[in-house]
Amino acid sequence: MLEGVQLSPIKIVTDERGSVIKMFDANHPNFHRFGEIYFSVVNPGFVKAWKLHKASYSNLMATEGHVHFVLYDAREGSSTFGQFQEVDLNSNDRQLLVIPPGIMYGWKNAIDHPSTIANCASETYSPEESVNPPRETLQYDWGDGK
Amino acid sequence: MLEGVQLSPIKIVTDERGSVIKMFDANHPNFHRFGEIYFSVVNPGFVKAWKLHKASYSNLMATEGHVHFVLYDAREGSSTFGQFQEVDLNSNDRQLLVIPPGIMYGWKNAIDHPSTIANCASETYSPEESVNPPRETLQYDWGDGK
Repeated sequence: MLEGVQLSPIKIVTDERGSVIKMFDANHPNFHRFGEIYFSVVNPGFVKAWKLHKASYSNLMATEGHVHFVLYDAREGSSTFGQFQEVDLNSNDRQLLVIPPGIMYGWKNAIDHPSTIANCASETYSPEESVNPPRETLQYDWGDGK
Repeated sequence: MLEGVQLSPIKIVTDERGSVIKMFDANHPNFHRFGEIYFSVVNPGFVKAWKLHKASYSNLMATEGHVHFVLYDAREGSSTFGQFQEVDLNSNDRQLLVIPPGIMYGWKNAIDHPSTIANCASETYSPEESVNPPRETLQYDWGDGK
């Protein structure tokens, strides 16, 4: 695991009517503050990379489908500086992925229908805080990902 | 509209890779504070009613499917005390539904596959804050809803 990256199980309560999926709350040990909650849909065969948050903690869950994440530690001074990590999020096995600011990440839809991830981020959106380094910034083989 | 209930459009940014659905952020005029983000799945034919938050603002969006909401103003002193309101949320026409504390609400899955709503609530869960009055508390005909 890259320094500060965390993966934790999400509590789900189920009955005959349906279920309740408790993604994240203000009592979570990784809660810093609330910036925004948004959803990112990625179509089959597509990659979204790279994303670099300069200040925001990303708290991520797959709400639908299966996504393959690639993380790169771009924080000079981190014990895992320059290392990669790969993590899958799947709506059939809910987990919360916490990514601290300064880690560059991208993700690819791993299935043949759209996948969606939710991000409960610690900062509101701004183009200064959330930057999109081009794909070639890092050497990573996304396979057939467009 | 019941006093304090609001319905507003959700911004969606789409490109060939997919889309980004901006549900709610800390700059929204209805933001009070962050308690938790959870998802409630309701199976076909089922109703979840009633729910009464004593302190929490509910900020709701359909992430999947189509749900029929019924709201009842249980706040003595409100200009709409004792009145009902009905609102549909549909993932094909994203809107944010803000329900203040003191309004009793329930919802029914309006389609033949599971529907999911997201709630970005202003309080963390507690059994004192979030109560579940039994179905017969209010006279409302849910049709064939179980």
